[in-house]
Amino acid sequence: MTMPNRPTLSDAARPATYEVEAINERGEMVPTAIAGEHPLTIYLDKREIVTLMTLGHAPEALVLGYLRNQRLVDSIDSIAAVQVDWETDSAAVTTRRRSTRGLKQKMAKRTVTSGCGQGTMFGNLMEEIERVTLLDDVRLADSQLFDLIEQVRRHETIYKQAGAVHGCALARTTGPAAAEIMMFVEDVGRHNAVDAIAGRMWLDGIDGSDKIFYTTGRLTSEMVIKCAQMRIPFLVSRSGLTRMGHTIAERVGLTMLGRASGRHYLAFTGRHRIERTAPQATAIA
Amino acid sequence: MTMPNRPTLSDAARPATYEVEAINERGEMVPTAIAGEHPLTIYLDKREIVTLMTLGHAPEALVLGYLRNQRLVDSIDSIAAVQVDWETDSAAVTTRRRSTRGLKQKMAKRTVTSGCGQGTMFGNLMEEIERVTLLDDVRLADSQLFDLIEQVRRHETIYKQAGAVHGCALARTTGPAAAEIMMFVEDVGRHNAVDAIAGRMWLDGIDGSDKIFYTTGRLTSEMVIKCAQMRIPFLVSRSGLTRMGHTIAERVGLTMLGRASGRHYLAFTGRHRIERTAPQATAIA
Repeated sequence: MTMPNRPTLSDAARPATYEVEAINERGEMVPTAIAGEHPLTIYLDKREIVTLMTLGHAPEALVLGYLRNQRLVDSIDSIAAVQVDWETDSAAVTTRRRSTRGLKQKMAKRTVTSGCGQGTMFGNLMEEIERVTLLDDVRLADSQLFDLIEQVRRHETIYKQAGAVHGCALARTTGPAAAEIMMFVEDVGRHNAVDAIAGRMWLDGIDGSDKIFYTTGRLTSEMVIKCAQMRIPFLVSRSGLTRMGHTIAERVGLTMLGRASGRHYLAFTGRHRIERTAPQATAIA
Repeated sequence: MTMPNRPTLSDAARPATYEVEAINERGEMVPTAIAGEHPLTIYLDKREIVTLMTLGHAPEALVLGYLRNQRLVDSIDSIAAVQVDWETDSAAVTTRRRSTRGLKQKMAKRTVTSGCGQGTMFGNLMEEIERVTLLDDVRLADSQLFDLIEQVRRHETIYKQAGAVHGCALARTTGPAAAEIMMFVEDVGRHNAVDAIAGRMWLDGIDGSDKIFYTTGRLTSEMVIKCAQMRIPFLVSRSGLTRMGHTIAERVGLTMLGRASGRHYLAFTGRHRIERTAPQATAIA
């Protein structure tokens, strides 16, 4: 553990839901919970980086994960502090000496490839992804998968109350707590939720190579790239996928499951890591 | 009509879905349709602006709407041509003289407020939104709304085949074709879908002030801002909303309906524009 270098963090979660009044089709007043959404501007050593719109439920982890996934800071050890202040809707990140070398260059490269709720760092990240090797000698029994799906179903509290959020979970594939949820984050943006998980993993020094990443969101290229960046071999979603998500998952050898719900799933790529344990499997295989 | 100034457009839609093989929980091979996703880099007068990940179903309209909604070009008349070329995954936009004045400044301002799949131009846009006045003297009967919901339900072909896309529709509130869908766009990103509608409206000189905007996506701040930018008073979603979406809708006086499905809806803001026609309404009101 690298506790001496652990950054100092604020603990500034916002309330997840708020109640507003709505009128339904029968003219009745219906008090309705809605998800919070707050702008959060990240300053890295006083330099303004980005404004994220977030639920604000795990803002420090989100900031860390954003800096990690955008490759703006190379190591968690170089971060001295993350201070989130909702009075000013800002997150002040301070680094230890020498850690933001090349930031100006990285920011310049970002300009042309990122956009309003739409852009990607696709070019840069694909180069990096080509070099990723995911652990091959790791298995997921479908019974574990069904366990995980059931846990997620019970876990999604903000979504159930207010909708309008995406959830992400990280789980183990091995050990006595296999398939148990290690962390669960919801956010108004599906990329925020995955970044917050990445931030927590970075902070706690958690290795992704034997983990499962679950998301309620769609498996687009960026989601697959982020999963591979974290070295996680299993990516599971209850939604569908895009062709580019499929292509990238195939190229990096990721095990990608879509439409995972109840005791159903579709395995699209990296199927060798899946072990079927259901009775039907024995009959067929 | 400004036909003499209408830009020259390519017609380069990509196939919407592709088929891949998946293995289900019973070990059976299931041919599965998945949505396309392609990078599309926009060059404005040879300057690289952004790379969007898109379904590629209405790429020219998407490019126009992106430039419009990001306020990178002020008028459709200043655009001479949009040429989408999937060999190079690029869209070359050429403008008539003097039209990209101040672009460098705008791009600089973008840098700090936009992010990878997450960022917003919130600050800039909010200033603009404060000056928007939506037409108040326009009504939507809930019977029209139910009509529209039913049309959308029948219309969403890519979603039904492949999932992983969001759909947006534009409809009239008045005239013989009231509540009929004028345009419908699906894309892997919900912001792409709304931008493509904005692009088509710009191109065809369609005024938004008596229209309904429907989205399958969540009503976050950016969605509400884009709807107000297009001067559309009605924003309808089958999903939920966020608190900031609610706050902005209230501030600009937008009529915002969520959870619209079948013959149900929740009216959150601007309720005076909704006319209930259902029998229950008479009993209560």
